[in-house]
Amino acid sequence: MSIENTDMKSFIAISDIISLLNMSSGFLSIICSINNNFELAAILMIIAIMFDSVDGWVARKTNRQDDLGFGKNIDSLSDVISFGAAPAIFLYTCINTTPSIFEIAVMLVSLLIVICGVLRLTRYNVIAGKIDTDDFIGLPIPCISFIMATLYLSGLFHPILALILAIAVSLLMISNIRYPKFDNIPIIGLSCILILILILPININIFNINPAGLLLLLFCLYYLIINLIKR
Amino acid sequence: MSIENTDMKSFIAISDIISLLNMSSGFLSIICSINNNFELAAILMIIAIMFDSVDGWVARKTNRQDDLGFGKNIDSLSDVISFGAAPAIFLYTCINTTPSIFEIAVMLVSLLIVICGVLRLTRYNVIAGKIDTDDFIGLPIPCISFIMATLYLSGLFHPILALILAIAVSLLMISNIRYPKFDNIPIIGLSCILILILILPININIFNINPAGLLLLLFCLYYLIINLIKR
Repeated sequence: MSIENTDMKSFIAISDIISLLNMSSGFLSIICSINNNFELAAILMIIAIMFDSVDGWVARKTNRQDDLGFGKNIDSLSDVISFGAAPAIFLYTCINTTPSIFEIAVMLVSLLIVICGVLRLTRYNVIAGKIDTDDFIGLPIPCISFIMATLYLSGLFHPILALILAIAVSLLMISNIRYPKFDNIPIIGLSCILILILILPININIFNINPAGLLLLLFCLYYLIINLIKR
Repeated sequence: MSIENTDMKSFIAISDIISLLNMSSGFLSIICSINNNFELAAILMIIAIMFDSVDGWVARKTNRQDDLGFGKNIDSLSDVISFGAAPAIFLYTCINTTPSIFEIAVMLVSLLIVICGVLRLTRYNVIAGKIDTDDFIGLPIPCISFIMATLYLSGLFHPILALILAIAVSLLMISNIRYPKFDNIPIIGLSCILILILILPININIFNINPAGLLLLLFCLYYLIINLIKR
C-alpha cells in the first residue's frame, strides 16, 4: 500500500458514518450524565444501540467492500465508547447524586464495566468467524447500556440494584455462556414500538413507573437469565 | 475453534494487563475531570501514555504469541478511552468551569477529538504492516492527551488556546502527514526525567509556570510543527 492510498476519505463508507453516529450518541450521553441530565443520557444510550444495530445491515445493503476490516474496526472502537464508557459514567454520576453510597465502590464498579466491555469486544474481534456457533459467547455488550437506560427510564433506578445489575452484567459479558442471536420477529417488533414510546416525549407513567421502560427491562433480564439457566 | 477455547483466561497475557492499566488510567482521568480535579486528571492521562508506551515492549520481551491479534485489539480499544474520551472530557469539563465560553462549541470540539481519535485508530489498525514506511501516518493519538495534560500542568491553560490546539491536533491526527517514530535517545531520556518531575508531588513553579510542563509541551509542539512544515 502506498502513502497516497491512506487518505481517510478513501476508507469511509456510509455504514462507518452510522458507526460514528453510534459513538457520538454514546459520547453525548456521557456529556449529559456529567450535566446530571440522566433522562437524556439514558435515551442517547438507547439511540446508540439503534445505530449499532443498523450499521452492519447498511454495510450489507450498500455492498460495502471491507477487505481491510475498516468497518469492523470502527464499529468496535465506537462500541467501547457507547457501551463501555457511557454506561459506566452514567452509573457513576447517577449514583453520586445519592451521597450515602460509598464513592470508591461506585467508581470500582464503573471501572469494572469498562474493563469487561473492552475484554468482551476484544474476544469478539478475535473469535468472530473462527468459531463453530452462531451464538454470542458472553452477554452482548449493548446489554449493559440497555439495562442501565431502561432501569432509569422505567423509574425503578435504585443505587444498590443498579450496582448489583452492573456487576452481574459485566461478569456475564466476559463469561463463556452462549447467548443466541435475537431472531424472534414479534418480540423485535414489539421492542421497537416500546423503544419509540420510551424515547419520544410521551409521558405515560403509572405510579411513577414507565410501563414501556419496565417491559423492555424485563425482556432484557429474561434473555439474560433464561440463557444463564439453560447453560 | 471450539467454545471451550474461548475462555477469557486463555487469551490474556501480561502485556494485555498493561493495556488495561492504560485504559484504567484514562477512565480514572475522566472520573477526576468530572470531579473537577483537573491536576490529577492530567497526571492520569500522562500515566496512561506511559503504560501505552511499554505494553508493546513487554509483549516482545515476554515473547507473547498473538496470532489472533488479541493484544493488538485490546491495545486499540484501550487507546480510544485514554486518548479519545479522556482528553475530550478533560477539555469539556475544564473549560466549563469558565462560564463565559459558549458551551455548545466546547461540546462540539470535544466530540471532534473522539471522532478523529476513532478514525485515527481505525486507519492505523487497517494499514499497520501493509504500508511501505516506518513513519506514523497522521499525528499519533497520544499527542492529544499529552498536549492537553502538559498545557494544563504547565500553568498556561486558557480556554481559547486549548480549543484551537484541540482542533489542530484532531485534524492532524486524521491527516495524511507523516510523523517519524521518536528515536532520539537524549530527548526521550530528558522527557522521562521531566515527566517524573511533573507527575511527582514536587511543586516547582516560576511565575505560576511549571518549567517541566512547559518544556514537555514545547517538545510536543515542536514535533507537531516541524513535521507539518517538512511536508
